[in-house]
Amino acid sequence: MATIRDVAKEAGVSVATVSRVINGSGYAHEDTRKAVIAAVEKLQYKPNEVARSLYKRKSKLVGLILPDITNPFFPEMARGIEDYLQREGYRLIFGNSDENRKKEREYLDTFLQNNVVGLIISTNEQDHTIFDNLTIPAVLLDRTAGHLPAVYSDQQQGGRLAAEILLARGAKEITIIRGPVEIKTVYERYLSAVSVLEDTDVKVHILDSALSYQGARKCAKEVFVKYPDTDGIIACNDIVAATILQEALAMGKRVPEDIQVIGYDNVSFTALLHPALSTIQQPAYEMGTKAAEILIKKINQEKLEEIHTVFPVSFIERGTTREVE
Amino acid sequence: MATIRDVAKEAGVSVATVSRVINGSGYAHEDTRKAVIAAVEKLQYKPNEVARSLYKRKSKLVGLILPDITNPFFPEMARGIEDYLQREGYRLIFGNSDENRKKEREYLDTFLQNNVVGLIISTNEQDHTIFDNLTIPAVLLDRTAGHLPAVYSDQQQGGRLAAEILLARGAKEITIIRGPVEIKTVYERYLSAVSVLEDTDVKVHILDSALSYQGARKCAKEVFVKYPDTDGIIACNDIVAATILQEALAMGKRVPEDIQVIGYDNVSFTALLHPALSTIQQPAYEMGTKAAEILIKKINQEKLEEIHTVFPVSFIERGTTREVE
Repeated sequence: MATIRDVAKEAGVSVATVSRVINGSGYAHEDTRKAVIAAVEKLQYKPNEVARSLYKRKSKLVGLILPDITNPFFPEMARGIEDYLQREGYRLIFGNSDENRKKEREYLDTFLQNNVVGLIISTNEQDHTIFDNLTIPAVLLDRTAGHLPAVYSDQQQGGRLAAEILLARGAKEITIIRGPVEIKTVYERYLSAVSVLEDTDVKVHILDSALSYQGARKCAKEVFVKYPDTDGIIACNDIVAATILQEALAMGKRVPEDIQVIGYDNVSFTALLHPALSTIQQPAYEMGTKAAEILIKKINQEKLEEIHTVFPVSFIERGTTREVE
Repeated sequence: MATIRDVAKEAGVSVATVSRVINGSGYAHEDTRKAVIAAVEKLQYKPNEVARSLYKRKSKLVGLILPDITNPFFPEMARGIEDYLQREGYRLIFGNSDENRKKEREYLDTFLQNNVVGLIISTNEQDHTIFDNLTIPAVLLDRTAGHLPAVYSDQQQGGRLAAEILLARGAKEITIIRGPVEIKTVYERYLSAVSVLEDTDVKVHILDSALSYQGARKCAKEVFVKYPDTDGIIACNDIVAATILQEALAMGKRVPEDIQVIGYDNVSFTALLHPALSTIQQPAYEMGTKAAEILIKKINQEKLEEIHTVFPVSFIERGTTREVE
């Protein structure tokens, strides 16, 4: 690749002059300017972003920390972020935290050492001391924290909606699958579903599950042993819902006649199940886009109208819930 | 964050001395060394990676270009890469190319401007001129090219296996769903399946499909209109297989009695379908890990035993294929 020295030589000027022309700083005669630009084009010179970032103390890098890109909820989000940043000329440094505080801090440190200008993080760090000494903007995604900009969807609405939908469709013995209580968003949707159901006559069971494929498998085996007559499942995410649906079908249960199942997230594969999964949709791609947009605003020191952006969720009605009675 | 100046002040030495101690270059008295290290620890000083990369002309950044992280085949691969790099202290800059040459080149350019020390790319660029002037190591992933290090799985084995499996399980009228011919891996598995079937008595149909959810939907509608009596489907990927499976079930066909379906990739959700999808597994996570391992070897100027690493594929037998007759 051509260096600034090559450009200077080609244009017959000093390195300092090339630098002035490229950075638009200080005086350069019009002919000189043209000669430099011609040399830049001829040699296809690209200013070194690292040198530039040292000079300006600014890079075009943004750090992203997500729990696990193999959880199908997160690629959509990551894609939303990356598409927005790409259009704005920013690039993404990415790490999987596995919800592990130590890994989160390591990524944070090394991202800062690489002079990222902003961060988008999905973390469950409760005390948020991890962010206290940050000198760059950060946006929380799919998570909430009082004082930091955050983008998330309305978990209370989601939990309520799932419960109301099964009630309106005649479920009499509902099992709520509760995800990990330390994940605030997942816990909120659970609490909200419980609060709707506790004022009704339906029988309610609560069963814990991890959010992973393996965890879902264990839960799906357990649910029909413990509650063989349950006729409605409110799952903590789509993976758990799909696994329970598969188990129910394998046992010969008719869906949605004998048992209704409702998922959470609306990840892509839910539309491919048979019957296709009814679920609560979080607009993952749009949430990612919005987080990137807010971060860029913060980087450009624009004023935010609101510090928290809450997306509404919606019910995607497919084949695992009945028609309204 | 503490700067090198703060450390110098705390230790009562010059900035140059701190730099010498940290970089292990030049002489420093043992007491001085201890004072500097104590100051570094007390202030939790982290040397700026950008400054370091300019100085050494080396960063700890690796660039990754994948077609689309929302295609469920790629997150597994990305996770394999990232896990390996994370353990080795490298960080990943990531971009989605959408198989678009212009985007690939843009990413390549900006990654280089950010002083990445290596690249992992999944590209269909046929002439590979994009790589000709590279001064850093690159590894092709899930793609092949003569002269560059590459990690991929055995597509010929995969296509052959899928065809042999449907033959052994009694299919008489097989439809091969051919993905985009410009994607070499996808085209190879197709050719290989055809070559097995053309020497047999079974009736063979060929139908084109995109690899996306939307493309699969179109193909699934088309296949049973065009070939209502087809009793075996060899799909170009799992998304297409799952969509055709759903369509067959919706039409009241019995799977695998009336029609058998075999996918390709073994992405996570295939195990959640009912019946669960029989498919050809590519070891995506291991392929990602291997690509990262080879790249780090190249960065460290170690000699590679082989320039191409080919992973075998395997048949994952589930519910959409019959027992062997």
